[in-house]
Amino acid sequence: MNTLTIGLIGAGRIGKIHAESIARRIPGSCLAAVADVYLPAAEEIAARLNVPKVVVDYRHLLDDKNIDAIVIASASDTHAQIIEEAASAGKEIFCEKPIDFDLARIDRALAAVADAGVRLQVGFNRRFDANFRKVREMVAAGKIGQPQILRITSRDPAPPPIEYIKVSGGLFLDMTIHDFDMARYLVGGEVHEIYATGAVLVDPAIGKAGDIDTAVITLTFDNGVIGTIDNSRRAVYGYDQRVEVFGSEGMVAVSNERPDTHVLANQDGLHASLPYYFFLERYLDSYIAEMQAFVDAVTSGAPTAVTGEDGRIPVVMGLAAQKSLREKRPVGLEEIGE
Amino acid sequence: MNTLTIGLIGAGRIGKIHAESIARRIPGSCLAAVADVYLPAAEEIAARLNVPKVVVDYRHLLDDKNIDAIVIASASDTHAQIIEEAASAGKEIFCEKPIDFDLARIDRALAAVADAGVRLQVGFNRRFDANFRKVREMVAAGKIGQPQILRITSRDPAPPPIEYIKVSGGLFLDMTIHDFDMARYLVGGEVHEIYATGAVLVDPAIGKAGDIDTAVITLTFDNGVIGTIDNSRRAVYGYDQRVEVFGSEGMVAVSNERPDTHVLANQDGLHASLPYYFFLERYLDSYIAEMQAFVDAVTSGAPTAVTGEDGRIPVVMGLAAQKSLREKRPVGLEEIGE
Amino acid sequence: MNTLTIGLIGAGRIGKIHAESIARRIPGSCLAAVADVYLPAAEEIAARLNVPKVVVDYRHLLDDKNIDAIVIASASDTHAQIIEEAASAGKEIFCEKPIDFDLARIDRALAAVADAGVRLQVGFNRRFDANFRKVREMVAAGKIGQPQILRITSRDPAPPPIEYIKVSGGLFLDMTIHDFDMARYLVGGEVHEIYATGAVLVDPAIGKAGDIDTAVITLTFDNGVIGTIDNSRRAVYGYDQRVEVFGSEGMVAVSNERPDTHVLANQDGLHASLPYYFFLERYLDSYIAEMQAFVDAVTSGAPTAVTGEDGRIPVVMGLAAQKSLREKRPVGLEEIGE
Amino acid sequence: MNTLTIGLIGAGRIGKIHAESIARRIPGSCLAAVADVYLPAAEEIAARLNVPKVVVDYRHLLDDKNIDAIVIASASDTHAQIIEEAASAGKEIFCEKPIDFDLARIDRALAAVADAGVRLQVGFNRRFDANFRKVREMVAAGKIGQPQILRITSRDPAPPPIEYIKVSGGLFLDMTIHDFDMARYLVGGEVHEIYATGAVLVDPAIGKAGDIDTAVITLTFDNGVIGTIDNSRRAVYGYDQRVEVFGSEGMVAVSNERPDTHVLANQDGLHASLPYYFFLERYLDSYIAEMQAFVDAVTSGAPTAVTGEDGRIPVVMGLAAQKSLREKRPVGLEEIGE
Repeated sequence: MNTLTIGLIGAGRIGKIHAESIARRIPGSCLAAVADVYLPAAEEIAARLNVPKVVVDYRHLLDDKNIDAIVIASASDTHAQIIEEAASAGKEIFCEKPIDFDLARIDRALAAVADAGVRLQVGFNRRFDANFRKVREMVAAGKIGQPQILRITSRDPAPPPIEYIKVSGGLFLDMTIHDFDMARYLVGGEVHEIYATGAVLVDPAIGKAGDIDTAVITLTFDNGVIGTIDNSRRAVYGYDQRVEVFGSEGMVAVSNERPDTHVLANQDGLHASLPYYFFLERYLDSYIAEMQAFVDAVTSGAPTAVTGEDGRIPVVMGLAAQKSLREKRPVGLEEIGE
Repeated sequence: MNTLTIGLIGAGRIGKIHAESIARRIPGSCLAAVADVYLPAAEEIAARLNVPKVVVDYRHLLDDKNIDAIVIASASDTHAQIIEEAASAGKEIFCEKPIDFDLARIDRALAAVADAGVRLQVGFNRRFDANFRKVREMVAAGKIGQPQILRITSRDPAPPPIEYIKVSGGLFLDMTIHDFDMARYLVGGEVHEIYATGAVLVDPAIGKAGDIDTAVITLTFDNGVIGTIDNSRRAVYGYDQRVEVFGSEGMVAVSNERPDTHVLANQDGLHASLPYYFFLERYLDSYIAEMQAFVDAVTSGAPTAVTGEDGRIPVVMGLAAQKSLREKRPVGLEEIGE
Repeated sequence: MNTLTIGLIGAGRIGKIHAESIARRIPGSCLAAVADVYLPAAEEIAARLNVPKVVVDYRHLLDDKNIDAIVIASASDTHAQIIEEAASAGKEIFCEKPIDFDLARIDRALAAVADAGVRLQVGFNRRFDANFRKVREMVAAGKIGQPQILRITSRDPAPPPIEYIKVSGGLFLDMTIHDFDMARYLVGGEVHEIYATGAVLVDPAIGKAGDIDTAVITLTFDNGVIGTIDNSRRAVYGYDQRVEVFGSEGMVAVSNERPDTHVLANQDGLHASLPYYFFLERYLDSYIAEMQAFVDAVTSGAPTAVTGEDGRIPVVMGLAAQKSLREKRPVGLEEIGE
Repeated sequence: MNTLTIGLIGAGRIGKIHAESIARRIPGSCLAAVADVYLPAAEEIAARLNVPKVVVDYRHLLDDKNIDAIVIASASDTHAQIIEEAASAGKEIFCEKPIDFDLARIDRALAAVADAGVRLQVGFNRRFDANFRKVREMVAAGKIGQPQILRITSRDPAPPPIEYIKVSGGLFLDMTIHDFDMARYLVGGEVHEIYATGAVLVDPAIGKAGDIDTAVITLTFDNGVIGTIDNSRRAVYGYDQRVEVFGSEGMVAVSNERPDTHVLANQDGLHASLPYYFFLERYLDSYIAEMQAFVDAVTSGAPTAVTGEDGRIPVVMGLAAQKSLREKRPVGLEEIGE
């Protein structure tokens, strides 16, 4: 396989980023088609990036023999279905998170992938962020000895619209799911129990919509590590994404990226720039890097960096967190139907 | 009252610090006597600081009409008893934490203080650390709006001897008790529920002694704040004491103090000094400041900065954390017998 | 003018960066041709970026009516000549620094540009770095009041080959020239006197080649600001690029960019990543931004951000520094033939 | 010698600090007498610290057989005279900087010290600051290889009163003299040439008084190091005291000490505390440490850490800087009458 020919399904915010990466940044890949139920969105991308084919129905991409791989960036509730169909069509698959919120549907999708013998990479892009990757590398290299405590702070700059929140799956499946993935990735182990505390402190409308906007979650790992995640839907100072792993021989932590390093000193104190405002700014490079990794894996025949199982487990964790919050007790992952 | 004449009970490590502060650093105070069951320890302090009176039995200090105030730095299990006696003798009282681990004994001691109309300050010295004080001031001044999330990292450089651990009251009452106090102080509110996770990751001998050495604790406050504390008995890089309060309008955090600000850049990276090794180095100034505050409160007739109730509540929290760990469920403070 | 059609002259290291920016990153620009005396270099770029035209002789680009603008990234000693010819051909011009080291040749080139009424932008890319731009913006906005002291630290990770040094024009014209530009840019004023001290501390071979490798330069500005620049050809910890402007109301400084924010704490201390190794890593974004600014200026009819005069003055400063070093005295810029 | 009995001459701001250190902080020393031409100042110290003897005329201290050592903290123009007399009286001597501004007087004082065989320590307290000491230790230990560039930033928070400036000896002898000492100390070598640029940018009244308030100074060392110092009489953000030494194998730098480590993040940016306001706050520990070092040297018979020659050379450097500024050329130290 020389150049990997890719079809994109979903021309929204994330779809655009992947389209740009494939068309301009990643050697060995080519964007051959874009599908979107809203055609003008697909056309806009196609025009800018000289993509020859634009369709409303993604099935045309699955039928296209020239297309090697599919990038799924459509609405979340279509992911599992498209994975199944794409696998049946023999396409290699990159799918945005989540695969689905329903474990039975996830399992059917993963079975279809296994049956077809294609590759699947799930879009947990933060694994490709230079900072988190550095932490993982240091933990894996034993720089901190045996990991013991994990701390993740993950706060958004502002809550999404209430209409989005209603269909989001809730804080744990929409937002914390990234942190659940990060927890497994950084520690290099599996969680067996979760205790979640949550509250509505940012906006009462979020509570009315049946969700929470603030949470602290305790994770217990098989290897003894204890983790804690704190989430908020609104950090007025911007996107706050920090992690720390503490172990028997040391500690490694990363802080927020900022647009510049300036410090202004005046009579009122020292002042510096805020972190990047949100994920599009902070994680742009990681979106490019994950797509590069997908293209590399597929063209070299190597396993993908984030597998279907990696896509499934954080959903189990999210469901466990929901149950813990509801029942006010720690919940084992095996209760969720592991 | 011109100069406050103070008698010190207990000439150990903390007793020495208070002796030095009273004799040399604090205007308006005078160290008149030192009592210790091991006389040479008291004599050593007296010789160095020109203290005229040295005794084995602290009751001689309570009987001494020239002594206005008593500083209790003896073994923890003597605190409640001495408080009661000192109160009956009409002495103003500074008592190291904890008052006791038994709530009934604490309550008797506090009742004796109330009956005698004397002042009691409990030795939660970290409230007088410039960093934590700054955080409290900013939270109290509304700089971060309504507090929502509290994070405390509190890790010791090395565990104490096993013999000490056996009589320490356990991690939550020996070590986390400071963090429980800090949680109340920083947030300016009360905790109503605690969930604790713990493990033996540092030294199996600690487990054999019936204790844990690593913990993550979730605190739920009456005012909606959710807090998380992580503890370890051994951070190889030194004493790790950081706090962060996040709120509706911002976030304030403090990091570790270090002995110098140097950065060495060489081919291997950037390198800087470790934090101070332990509490005697890190909190020396706060020990002086708390004693100054006690002297000021007593001589001015003002309430003490850390009251008997402030000494009692963290014990309740520690007992709740123990129960939570044992029963693997969140425990309300009212269950402890508030 | 819709899309700006650009011809690139010089397919070396910097030429490749500009080619990539024009072809992939900058809306409104198009790379139509590449010229290089070594044809395979031009062909390599053309193949990767789908550039239709490749030539050895740049004059074919000047004759091409479809080409609106020329980017000059060829050998330094060809810049002035190509500027003159490109201006005569009516092309808009982006030229890498330096225009030339000979003031008479610079002046002829600038006269040609003026006569032809075309635009010229000189490649002082650091002006487009987010950090330095932030400092400039804050100074210009009066955030530090009246500027008084300027500090620039500018150190390379390793010296270039001796063969390069021999034809480089010397440290002041090859390396400090960027800092001279930065000094004018940050302060927003002109230098009238320079005092330079230099030494051979890195490599005796550099001394044998008639150059220095370490320098400290004092700048006196018309507006009273005093500046100091320090240079080294070898900082073993990587590319060290920091600036600071101090004024009547405060100070603003920027430090080095690093590839990640990790801090590792272990028994030996705290450790962090080194700065980016060299200018290609550190200033990649600024190369893109300066080309975007050129395209924007030309298409909108606005003046370029870095003019021919901005290209000339740092050469005068470099010549003054050389004279100061030689004669061991401060040298006024008017002595150089301003 | 058991306890070192010390007499203090001069009960001003610095005298008070030394008195406090001797009386309360330094084991093995005892403050036996205080002399001041303004008796109430001496009496105030004596009352607070229980000093038995108070006099107007310092000669009474020199005649007192019980006094082993003299601390000279009187007006600068009395230092040389008192050193001579104290040496003749056989007293060990600690003298605040400067010894004098007149080289002939300095030399007479140093000769008297040598003749009497007593010890003299000059009060360059910054050598005892934990930060600068760390830099020196790392340089001396070869951590940065061969030193090549030295950078010192030294800025006061506010200028002294004009009346003080008139008799101060000028910026170079009053303020930069500390930096000249620091330069020699950090690099571990001698300066042979100085070039000074100065301006009146802070307050025209300082110019009318014949002085400058802003300066940049270039130092050339015998061992090849090139140094640069920048000074201002007014940094609105507080006392700015930073140094950096760059060498063949790395770089070590220290930044300002601040009263706390807090960072406040809100919608406007990140905010932190200013540095300590001035030298009394920043260098309190170094004043204590230098006096401890003096007591230790005298009682152990070791050489003092800062000798008479260490007191003389920075004055030579200050005079060279003055001459350089006046004559607008680099000035060799041998021109000053080394």
